[in-house]
Amino acid sequence: MKSDIKVLKDGGVTSAQGFVAAGISAGIKPDSKKDMALVYSVNPAQVGATFTTNLVKAAPVKVSMTHARNGTVRGVILNSGNANACTGVRGIKNARTMVEETAEALDCKPKEILVCSTGRIGVQLPMNKIGRGIKKAVSKLDIDGGVEAAKAIMTSDTFRKEYAVRVEIDGRKVTIGGIAKGAGMIHPQMATMLSVITTDVAIDKIALRKCVYNAVEQSFNRISVDGDTSTNDTVIVLANSMAQNPVLKSYSPQLDLFQRALTTVMRHLSRMIVKDGEGVSRMVEVIVKGAASFADAKAAALAVAHSPLVKCSWCGGDPNWGRLMDAIGYSGARIKEEMVEIYYDGVLAVANGEASRTPVARLRKAVSKPAFTITIHLHTGTGEYSVLTTDLTEKYVEFNKGE
Amino acid sequence: MKSDIKVLKDGGVTSAQGFVAAGISAGIKPDSKKDMALVYSVNPAQVGATFTTNLVKAAPVKVSMTHARNGTVRGVILNSGNANACTGVRGIKNARTMVEETAEALDCKPKEILVCSTGRIGVQLPMNKIGRGIKKAVSKLDIDGGVEAAKAIMTSDTFRKEYAVRVEIDGRKVTIGGIAKGAGMIHPQMATMLSVITTDVAIDKIALRKCVYNAVEQSFNRISVDGDTSTNDTVIVLANSMAQNPVLKSYSPQLDLFQRALTTVMRHLSRMIVKDGEGVSRMVEVIVKGAASFADAKAAALAVAHSPLVKCSWCGGDPNWGRLMDAIGYSGARIKEEMVEIYYDGVLAVANGEASRTPVARLRKAVSKPAFTITIHLHTGTGEYSVLTTDLTEKYVEFNKGE
Repeated sequence: MKSDIKVLKDGGVTSAQGFVAAGISAGIKPDSKKDMALVYSVNPAQVGATFTTNLVKAAPVKVSMTHARNGTVRGVILNSGNANACTGVRGIKNARTMVEETAEALDCKPKEILVCSTGRIGVQLPMNKIGRGIKKAVSKLDIDGGVEAAKAIMTSDTFRKEYAVRVEIDGRKVTIGGIAKGAGMIHPQMATMLSVITTDVAIDKIALRKCVYNAVEQSFNRISVDGDTSTNDTVIVLANSMAQNPVLKSYSPQLDLFQRALTTVMRHLSRMIVKDGEGVSRMVEVIVKGAASFADAKAAALAVAHSPLVKCSWCGGDPNWGRLMDAIGYSGARIKEEMVEIYYDGVLAVANGEASRTPVARLRKAVSKPAFTITIHLHTGTGEYSVLTTDLTEKYVEFNKGE
Repeated sequence: MKSDIKVLKDGGVTSAQGFVAAGISAGIKPDSKKDMALVYSVNPAQVGATFTTNLVKAAPVKVSMTHARNGTVRGVILNSGNANACTGVRGIKNARTMVEETAEALDCKPKEILVCSTGRIGVQLPMNKIGRGIKKAVSKLDIDGGVEAAKAIMTSDTFRKEYAVRVEIDGRKVTIGGIAKGAGMIHPQMATMLSVITTDVAIDKIALRKCVYNAVEQSFNRISVDGDTSTNDTVIVLANSMAQNPVLKSYSPQLDLFQRALTTVMRHLSRMIVKDGEGVSRMVEVIVKGAASFADAKAAALAVAHSPLVKCSWCGGDPNWGRLMDAIGYSGARIKEEMVEIYYDGVLAVANGEASRTPVARLRKAVSKPAFTITIHLHTGTGEYSVLTTDLTEKYVEFNKGE
């Protein structure tokens, strides 16, 4: 095992040098739960960010996309309880006001602030509460504030999601840590997964964006609870160079280590999101190998991960491989039925497109674990893809059917 | 209202002249329920058929596709309780044997027989039972056998599905009637929707195939229970010319009436299939209008119809339009958020991409009906599409999670 990436116990978004955070209650949520968070860098930080591909983008996404494009960033203001999505021109004005009020309180420029919202769609933000909340959050900024920030962005999450690692780059200790909130649109009228990750690495903009893109592709873009891409999905990475390592560039040999460390943080945060998916009873990694192309592998894996029938069978611990064959068949991936091989957690279930000789009891045991893999070998090429997903349970339906 | 299409009370697959049918128990299902059906035309019949687009095709689909391509057909042999899918070379041999034994008992050529199977995937057919069943079915062929045939193809269906209409073409009475079975892969390890439709119209092959294609496109291809396209889906239309009308050709003015009548039968059968979807509590027609193209309209409608979150909200009678906006946004359809208009059963819910002024209580009332429409106007073009679908319920999950 590689040990060049060290996990920090209780690490989070304030583990890296020069980052402070706060999480407070602004009264957006009804029950005085924490609902606003602020992450702040004492130095101007390079920023790499990815946003939802949904054409219906929440107002804060539109504003943050502009601010993340150019220049450096000082902070991220976040609220839960209201997604500020489908709120028209007024919604965009409100997102801008959030940014302006935060910048004023922190004595920086509005374009140095990013903004995220998560919660109910289609309702205007309570701007008085937000304004008071921003001042409160700024006054509470603290080097130990990461935990409170992680709590304040939760909606239907049942546990807070934090993770941090440390690596050594050119003799300097570099820390990467972050927070995240629930994936899938898993709460009634709630939307969004959000993640803010901070690092004290010194890195130029191009190298950072490349690393963020790669890490997101290997982590947050490989999880699926219900296949619904929200209007608010946002991942923001701030790098403030306080570790004082020689600035990482695209061609730096050390960039690989930073890339792996960043991917590790994102993979852990995204795994927590899947584990905390509403009503989830099993976590399943679907791995497709030997596809005609990467695109074919991805199509087959996602068809399996999105099939309600497949997900129901996982819920019941039923090794129903016929449904896997069916999903692969309609996925659009180029396949030859008689070449397909399927393993449940390493146990052969399907050989040459037909039932293997494995006793059903053994297959049943493999799929009755709380977490298992499904490996599908198409034997038509070298394309590979994997996705981490969940079962579909009665509890999921109950939770999401509204009142 | 048009009255040139007359509905036949208690009509079905033997309503048209010259068709007989049978439904018997061959012992494929454990509890001596009916599990084999035979539909037979006393005349050679033109055939139009459509089959699943799934790349994993059941053995009977492969055999029937070949037989439907050329020449005329005399009959269709069907079994439930076993899909004969993912059964390899032996499965194809067994499907061919079913065809040969049926042809022998009916004294016709094997290529004049089509074959359909529905039920469990991945298990070989019990060929001794099938062989005895074929002889029994042939001996029971009867002009009143349609009802028994409709029963014998049921799997998890809770009611049998039959429909027939009569039209007058060039002074001759023409009858079209059919049977169908459950849509979606709605039973544990069960697959397939099947439909056999018979008509005594005289029609040439090209005109028939055109009509079948159009009618399927407007009916069976516009329903979705769980988005899982099965390995066995088959629609077969037999036309035996016993009505003695002047043969319909592609350019006949009367073809339009036949087309409408055929579409009517298929729409009714497909509607029954949706209504009988496992665990369904509400039937919802999703209508997209004003899309940039037909493809955009279809993409938006199917994204809505397949979204687990949208389907859960229907289950709870929750007018959660934010989830509709979200699904439209990630559907791939070209949209402008601020142009979108959404109606629940005719009641305005979203205007200009934001909440309308309609009181929530009125929206809630609209979506609490057992059947309602959702009309989404994108205001970007003239593309239209509609799909008939269902809610997602705890019962669906319970039923499909296996033991």
